Amino acid sequence: MAQLSGKVEGVFIASMPESMVSARTPQVQVTFEGFVGDRHAGMIMRTGGRNPRYPRGTEIRNSRQVSICSQEELEQIAANLSIPVVQSEWLGANLTLSGIPRLTLLPPSTRLYFESGVTLVVEAENLPCTHAGEIIQEHYPDVPDLAARFPKAAMHLRGVVAWVEKPGVIREGETVQVEIPKQIPYEL
Amino acid sequence: MAQLSGKVEGVFIASMPESMVSARTPQVQVTFEGFVGDRHAGMIMRTGGRNPRYPRGTEIRNSRQVSICSQEELEQIAANLSIPVVQSEWLGANLTLSGIPRLTLLPPSTRLYFESGVTLVVEAENLPCTHAGEIIQEHYPDVPDLAARFPKAAMHLRGVVAWVEKPGVIREGETVQVEIPKQIPYEL
Repeated sequence: MAQLSGKVEGVFIASMPESMVSARTPQVQVTFEGFVGDRHAGMIMRTGGRNPRYPRGTEIRNSRQVSICSQEELEQIAANLSIPVVQSEWLGANLTLSGIPRLTLLPPSTRLYFESGVTLVVEAENLPCTHAGEIIQEHYPDVPDLAARFPKAAMHLRGVVAWVEKPGVIREGETVQVEIPKQIPYEL
Repeated sequence: MAQLSGKVEGVFIASMPESMVSARTPQVQVTFEGFVGDRHAGMIMRTGGRNPRYPRGTEIRNSRQVSICSQEELEQIAANLSIPVVQSEWLGANLTLSGIPRLTLLPPSTRLYFESGVTLVVEAENLPCTHAGEIIQEHYPDVPDLAARFPKAAMHLRGVVAWVEKPGVIREGETVQVEIPKQIPYEL
């Protein structure tokens, strides 16, 4: 297993049920349900457009509790869109990490061991949608087509979603160790 | 995403707390905790020897609720050990499937959609240990060194562990569709 480490640049909570935007906080309490106070917390979730296999509203186990972005990848998205900055809050990120190359491509079951004791497990790449692009657009009303350009500009850069393996507290500034499972290509 | 399908050859429950051996049943009730009545069911598990990152007995989310084996791979293990058969029950399997090539190498986050409505999500390859080998040895007392030979003979053939995304019932004989996430090699 390859190992590497990073740093928590920011901790964020999306507390408004109707908005994906998150807000910075110095630290967060983490339970088996996710980040306390975040709209994505819960052991069970109802499916939406991301789960075409299920009728909308089906109850399934929530493996998308936490949204994790990379500081370096956010800067790359901004460069791709020719704008000064893309803030973590606009994408509804719960954590922004630095120092982990190609964070968005961390494979499923990658474990993130945080210094203060929390463990998060990567479920999947978070595919970029136009909705996040619309929020970026609101901050740059004079730049054309940001919302429509966002999905392509952010592909493989928008971070990952994860679930909580071990509860505790995550604080801004702490370190995180990354454990990547051995990848064996599956071929028929 | 590559797609393929298989068939449920057997459903099994390990109901004895002190033994890993499972017993065949025509169908099983599946909840968010796992297979009802199985010793591995639960939302939370306590860590053991498989989690060197944690002190023994640490409470973590249970992503090893269900053990899934492949009929063809069990036959290959038996061939590798030069014995007539390795039964699913001896390995504590909860499900034995057929028709899915290299089932043990299905990558993490692979989804198994069962015909009757249950979804299971692959967490990891189930690494073979000598304990399962000892149970095989009990059934072939005259064959030397089966317990010690099992881990190597069963490497990449002992199946996977999985957790429940969608509850329901799984019945012997039903079909299962396999959805494999896109695999992008992570390289530093």
